[in-house]
Amino acid sequence: MVHHRAASHKLDAVTAAISHRTRRAIIDRLARGPARISDVAQPFAMSLTGFCKHVRVLERAGLVRRTRRGRNNTLELSPQPLRKVAHWVLQYEQFWNNRLDRLEQFFAQQNQKAQENQKES
Amino acid sequence: MVHHRAASHKLDAVTAAISHRTRRAIIDRLARGPARISDVAQPFAMSLTGFCKHVRVLERAGLVRRTRRGRNNTLELSPQPLRKVAHWVLQYEQFWNNRLDRLEQFFAQQNQKAQENQKES
Repeated sequence: MVHHRAASHKLDAVTAAISHRTRRAIIDRLARGPARISDVAQPFAMSLTGFCKHVRVLERAGLVRRTRRGRNNTLELSPQPLRKVAHWVLQYEQFWNNRLDRLEQFFAQQNQKAQENQKES
Repeated sequence: MVHHRAASHKLDAVTAAISHRTRRAIIDRLARGPARISDVAQPFAMSLTGFCKHVRVLERAGLVRRTRRGRNNTLELSPQPLRKVAHWVLQYEQFWNNRLDRLEQFFAQQNQKAQENQKES
């Protein structure tokens, strides 16, 4: 139970971390490779202080690692926690797929009807 | 751009909605079928008012539909927004898989070494 709760806390932090488009954009940038924090911050229309708050949320969720080398802070993607999100959400894959299956069935039936009508006419 | 922003707002709402274990537990319960709000609330150690706040977050994210029939409110899972989360997170699947590939490679090499050592001895 304790272990389950810890895993749940972790999933809370990771899903909250990815619930802001700026933080998703940082993940997207770091997926192309590690980079200096000032270079990652540059395209975002916000103060470096504001940007660093987002980085800290990602660090706490275990999604980003920061290496301090004097004034050159380097950020690196740490993708493993995203796997937990994928694992949780893919439990429900059958539910959105079932609906798609029903839609496909519907269109297949419509198609069959149209072909039958063509034969009859 | 407007469309992209709207999609991003939506993903913000859905990921924020699933960032609380109570809301994930509600989704899990409704995956077993639609149910009356009072029945869904019953196992949770919180007031109905507190519970309803969580339901409203899920409704706003499009994850739950509520049907009002007098005093019998029924809740139903609406799984489609979870698909968007899966789509976003699976973009990064290669990053956690690459690491697994490297681990597999490592164990395969260890195995090969062990077999070679056996032959030599």
